Amino acid sequence: MSDTFEIAGQSFSSRLLVGTGKYKDFEETKVAIEASGAEIVTVAVRRVNVSDPSQPMLVDYVDPKKYTYLPNTAGCFTCDDAVRTLRLAREAGGWDLVKLEVLGDQQTLYPNMPETLKAAEMLIKEGFKVMVYCSDDPIAAKMLEDMGCVAIMPLGSLIGSGLGILNPVNIQIIKQNAKVPVLVDAGVGTASDAAYAMELGCDGVLMNTAIAGAKDPIAMAKAMKLAVESGRLAFKAGRMPKKQYGDPSSPTSGLIDAK
Amino acid sequence: MSDTFEIAGQSFSSRLLVGTGKYKDFEETKVAIEASGAEIVTVAVRRVNVSDPSQPMLVDYVDPKKYTYLPNTAGCFTCDDAVRTLRLAREAGGWDLVKLEVLGDQQTLYPNMPETLKAAEMLIKEGFKVMVYCSDDPIAAKMLEDMGCVAIMPLGSLIGSGLGILNPVNIQIIKQNAKVPVLVDAGVGTASDAAYAMELGCDGVLMNTAIAGAKDPIAMAKAMKLAVESGRLAFKAGRMPKKQYGDPSSPTSGLIDAK
Amino acid sequence: MSDTFEIAGQSFSSRLLVGTGKYKDFEETKVAIEASGAEIVTVAVRRVNVSDPSQPMLVDYVDPKKYTYLPNTAGCFTCDDAVRTLRLAREAGGWDLVKLEVLGDQQTLYPNMPETLKAAEMLIKEGFKVMVYCSDDPIAAKMLEDMGCVAIMPLGSLIGSGLGILNPVNIQIIKQNAKVPVLVDAGVGTASDAAYAMELGCDGVLMNTAIAGAKDPIAMAKAMKLAVESGRLAFKAGRMPKKQYGDPSSPTSGLIDAK
Amino acid sequence: MSDTFEIAGQSFSSRLLVGTGKYKDFEETKVAIEASGAEIVTVAVRRVNVSDPSQPMLVDYVDPKKYTYLPNTAGCFTCDDAVRTLRLAREAGGWDLVKLEVLGDQQTLYPNMPETLKAAEMLIKEGFKVMVYCSDDPIAAKMLEDMGCVAIMPLGSLIGSGLGILNPVNIQIIKQNAKVPVLVDAGVGTASDAAYAMELGCDGVLMNTAIAGAKDPIAMAKAMKLAVESGRLAFKAGRMPKKQYGDPSSPTSGLIDAK
Repeated sequence: MSDTFEIAGQSFSSRLLVGTGKYKDFEETKVAIEASGAEIVTVAVRRVNVSDPSQPMLVDYVDPKKYTYLPNTAGCFTCDDAVRTLRLAREAGGWDLVKLEVLGDQQTLYPNMPETLKAAEMLIKEGFKVMVYCSDDPIAAKMLEDMGCVAIMPLGSLIGSGLGILNPVNIQIIKQNAKVPVLVDAGVGTASDAAYAMELGCDGVLMNTAIAGAKDPIAMAKAMKLAVESGRLAFKAGRMPKKQYGDPSSPTSGLIDAK
Repeated sequence: MSDTFEIAGQSFSSRLLVGTGKYKDFEETKVAIEASGAEIVTVAVRRVNVSDPSQPMLVDYVDPKKYTYLPNTAGCFTCDDAVRTLRLAREAGGWDLVKLEVLGDQQTLYPNMPETLKAAEMLIKEGFKVMVYCSDDPIAAKMLEDMGCVAIMPLGSLIGSGLGILNPVNIQIIKQNAKVPVLVDAGVGTASDAAYAMELGCDGVLMNTAIAGAKDPIAMAKAMKLAVESGRLAFKAGRMPKKQYGDPSSPTSGLIDAK
Repeated sequence: MSDTFEIAGQSFSSRLLVGTGKYKDFEETKVAIEASGAEIVTVAVRRVNVSDPSQPMLVDYVDPKKYTYLPNTAGCFTCDDAVRTLRLAREAGGWDLVKLEVLGDQQTLYPNMPETLKAAEMLIKEGFKVMVYCSDDPIAAKMLEDMGCVAIMPLGSLIGSGLGILNPVNIQIIKQNAKVPVLVDAGVGTASDAAYAMELGCDGVLMNTAIAGAKDPIAMAKAMKLAVESGRLAFKAGRMPKKQYGDPSSPTSGLIDAK
Repeated sequence: MSDTFEIAGQSFSSRLLVGTGKYKDFEETKVAIEASGAEIVTVAVRRVNVSDPSQPMLVDYVDPKKYTYLPNTAGCFTCDDAVRTLRLAREAGGWDLVKLEVLGDQQTLYPNMPETLKAAEMLIKEGFKVMVYCSDDPIAAKMLEDMGCVAIMPLGSLIGSGLGILNPVNIQIIKQNAKVPVLVDAGVGTASDAAYAMELGCDGVLMNTAIAGAKDPIAMAKAMKLAVESGRLAFKAGRMPKKQYGDPSSPTSGLIDAK
């Protein structure tokens, strides 16, 4: 009955991963994360205070013993920046399971794929377990997996856009070719987007703005928890085939006959 | 915290309504309905044995004291047939909350709207509380409401097609104009379709083939329960706005700086 | 090579029908219609001056000897209004090929289908040749054809919305069931929408706002002419099948080999 | 009135580029190309006989003096293969305007972007004018432009799939950021797809299977010519805005009043 999945040998029950940015305050962050049921939370190490005890610290609200912290390189635009950021994160917190993202520009926040490939290679050599934000290009996704990345995280659409999964064909091809987990990262805007990502066969979904940017983030966190579960269950249940013409949804014999 | 809705003065917690046709046997019907969490089940009175005790009877598996039985007129192609069928149902089981459907042809199972309007009028005069399967035409939906129907049930797409909600614009207009509950009836194929119906603001979803026609109907019933709940929650939470260009999903200040 | 179609026994080459409203002035109307290549123009008889010679008259710009005038009942919300309007039109201009539209409300401009069915029946009895604006309901479309309408004109989406064809499945079913011409009426916003309508197998497209509401109506009229022709040609040519995975688009043998 | 565009300083009127593979024979190739109005034809130099006069030769049917031959590297899976192929093409035919494609696998025919970037750089250094097939990744597209490619050719969907433009958002971003021409390459299946590509603002469209794989390739070639022209014209004309609710498409005053 259990339906866990593994990243880098570690087993997780929740297939919803959440970010920790964009909330009103750490209290809201904490309650939203609890409502989401997430076991993995991503943390922008260049942006979140994880070491200065005179300031509010995320770790006081979101317990690193209870949640798997996944340091990410949000805000890094080169391989060097990203690698340096994650080395510091490892020194500061001992984290080696990390989320790599090397951005291409401020406008789209799309990944710079050549720099991403380079950074992934360096980080893997240094012993990091790299989960990697990438474009929805099946060839690049395969390169990242062959290189040793522990999870492939193609974008559904632009970070913070809420546009959903723009190219489900690519996501499906990536998943079909992959032996490591494939998690849709970026683009999900509402519950049906998350369910759809799971119905495509993905192993999980990572989101931040969809929850933090909703009018009621706590309610949306709960909605997303259910959406990911429902999409996963539907995928495993095996949906009915699509038809162009309907057929009666009731058996063809019966006893009450009004004629 | 509760989020019930009312049909004809009766309050319901579950916004997922399910059919009872197309299952392998009544045992599977029963378990699927339990997994779906539905409180209202539709029954094709011309097709399902509700009176001959020498044959297996749905009521022995799906307890009418526990579930609200909603007799429907599946298989009726004229106003007269539909009205006669529901009169018999009322005599047999005392039901007056009913689902009217008058079909237009065998091929599409689309409603015959003129006959549907006529039948709705007659049934309402005879004291029935009429929930009505209809096309996704906002003008016709309004006529049915003005006439006194207690719930409007526009199709998402063809019965048994699994094509999802083909015209979300119409469904939204119908909902915006309605004071009685609007339930999407027909067309849902998988979990994300159900979530989407709820995100459009609908009060509920009715389905049969999407569950009974899945490879694992019980798992899909559970998926649909979660999907409807997630879509409803997301609607109430208020989704993030859609943007064309992304923006960073992390706050712009922080303490660890790799530069 | 010719690809004409017939409405009520009359043969037409152009499959693009255009409205005459919403232009800056009659001069622009005239030039846009010329650019569109249309042979049939619809005229809102309750709105356009066709009889007072002291005012600018459409007939002085768009020659009724050159174009087939199709009087329409825009602005009519009841059967009676529509019938009365077309009787006056017949008296005034001798027109008996008409476009019936009975609207349901000011907000959506969707048709009131019961009133439309009633009006169609009356008009046909009075000898009118009725082209009829209707919802995209295949059952209603068939009734209108069986009743004797000479062309079925289902809406693509809301009048003046530019939302394109919201439910291509319905349009295709209507076309497959019809022996009279099916023309998409309302909803087209740009050239690809018009091409798509024709690729669905429709016999023609009627539009007004898509041309009159473009920044450059004359250029858009020309675009729409080409779009309708291209969609029609593509439909007749028989498009390639859709595949999920690509295959090389070049033959597999050759002489230059770089290896 | 003229609406030409330039690639590497050369001016073209037709915005439809066509492939030369997959036709029944060279005669059909020739007639289809003529019907398409294309001025640029791509030739898979590893597959097409351009030098052995004892065999049928494309140049005898498609005159290189009349058409711009664009040698492509179809079938090359590495930078080295592609570069070598184009050097041979330049030696054989003197061509330096070329279409680079380095494929990632046989199954998807998606580009291998790292190899593509490497090959583009080498070819540009050797004086080639490189038009480049690439993924729809805006960051990679910008790199290729910055490197000196003379045209960016993102895929609409998989080569030979006919799935249309799967991610219009990406195509639009690529176009907005580009100063060189952007041509959609691969994926177009029918006329409305081609019109849509142009409505997104692209400078042109390249296709092969959509024409050669149609039931009637010559008719489809003509359809595609009109579709590209219509989409271009519609883009330039400036389409009407999309609205959710309709408004009357006729002016609000008039003289005939049936009331």
